Amino acid sequence: MGLAPGYDAWIISVGNELLIGRVINTNLAWLGRKLTLLGYKVRGCITVPDDVEEIAWAFRTAAERGARVIVSTGGLGPTFDDKTVEGFAKALGAKLVLDREALRMVEEKYRAGGYELTEHRIKMATLPEGSKPIPNPVGTAPGVESRLGGALVFLLPGVPAEMKAIFEEYIEPKLREMGPGVCFAEAYFRAVGVPESEAAPLVERAMKASARAYVKSHPRGTELGAPLLEFHVTASAEEAEEARREARRVAELLARMLAEKGARIEWIE
Amino acid sequence: MGLAPGYDAWIISVGNELLIGRVINTNLAWLGRKLTLLGYKVRGCITVPDDVEEIAWAFRTAAERGARVIVSTGGLGPTFDDKTVEGFAKALGAKLVLDREALRMVEEKYRAGGYELTEHRIKMATLPEGSKPIPNPVGTAPGVESRLGGALVFLLPGVPAEMKAIFEEYIEPKLREMGPGVCFAEAYFRAVGVPESEAAPLVERAMKASARAYVKSHPRGTELGAPLLEFHVTASAEEAEEARREARRVAELLARMLAEKGARIEWIE
Repeated sequence: MGLAPGYDAWIISVGNELLIGRVINTNLAWLGRKLTLLGYKVRGCITVPDDVEEIAWAFRTAAERGARVIVSTGGLGPTFDDKTVEGFAKALGAKLVLDREALRMVEEKYRAGGYELTEHRIKMATLPEGSKPIPNPVGTAPGVESRLGGALVFLLPGVPAEMKAIFEEYIEPKLREMGPGVCFAEAYFRAVGVPESEAAPLVERAMKASARAYVKSHPRGTELGAPLLEFHVTASAEEAEEARREARRVAELLARMLAEKGARIEWIE
Repeated sequence: MGLAPGYDAWIISVGNELLIGRVINTNLAWLGRKLTLLGYKVRGCITVPDDVEEIAWAFRTAAERGARVIVSTGGLGPTFDDKTVEGFAKALGAKLVLDREALRMVEEKYRAGGYELTEHRIKMATLPEGSKPIPNPVGTAPGVESRLGGALVFLLPGVPAEMKAIFEEYIEPKLREMGPGVCFAEAYFRAVGVPESEAAPLVERAMKASARAYVKSHPRGTELGAPLLEFHVTASAEEAEEARREARRVAELLARMLAEKGARIEWIE
């Protein structure tokens, strides 16, 4: 089966700690930004607990909804509650097998630190049949590359430094090559003195002026009693310069309309 | 139809900004903690873009997976990309109608600020038939209370101050009353000198010593070259004192086993 058409990406975040509020999911924002800049459209994120059935469901759901790329974070370590590999294998209907290459990676890390290979460490070298380990330049648990339906799947650890290192060194070049080759640019400004509901029709007009720009307004409270709004204009294009021009053009159009309503505009670099 | 059995909760986070990485979803962590402390089990979070179909899908999915409570954040304001009410109405198969009570709430806010009611402001008073508005003590968009299948549904704004105020003033007392009445306690400590994979079998043993405690280990890098781990023990019980005792008991058991392996233990208050 070939990859799904389009460039839809899904993110799966695994971990009880995210759902009981012990940890804030900064990995999602980091990956979302990276994937967007690479030209992928992040269609959704599913956060599930450390539970094999729930993890399997999340992967199946993302694949069924047309993902071309699925990236998961969390649940890859040596402890009993690291269940992402098992959950993904269940979604795939694949057996778990000891992977020689993965075992070599894990062994190398522990030997360097003077530790023995134990059952818990060997667990990190057990992959769903047909998957490949990805070297982890920072920690011990290798990442995993696989396929599910029409989706290319990457399983990454939840520790941000490890997740980022594996993504940047291994996954990003791969996704850039198979991606749409889109460039992405942003423009920000603040407007003081116009309430959000008054700005809303102007934002709509600005968006209609471009098929490639997106405008988001963020209320930021008040400044000396006057409503303070922040605007974030994003644009994508095949060329970086074109994307920058489009973001700037739409932002300036909107700023001009807001100024006509009496807003004071402050550009954010 | 009555409420779903059990105390499963789902969180739905709406907003392109979460998926393109412009905003980190702190609302999820805050709500996850609150719901957990109230005795609910947060089974999942689905993050979707500002898209009516995707929002409708997320609500249907949470309800079908047995949620007793669904809380959404984001997409409730006056702008064209605030689509949560429309998406939820679609999941419900309900018409959108102008709600008199909601209109009164919105009108009051704007009149107080010297603003007129416009089409965009009236949008915030349009609710799925059969739903109720919830007063917003901080901002202008009312929250929404409704039902979907066996789930009680609350739609909240994405601005954290507004989301928190509505939750604490209106939803929390309600959920406490209809919840399992469970108490929840935590204990934290650090262990220096034992790697995570060596700690893993000890964590398993500690968990087996209690049916009501949960242990999570978080690698925190190294301290003078020695691995540093943080442990977080949570326990729930009908009585607060019982929960505290159980969390403490399991944490002390685990700390003792780690100390026997040569770890230095530091308690975190």
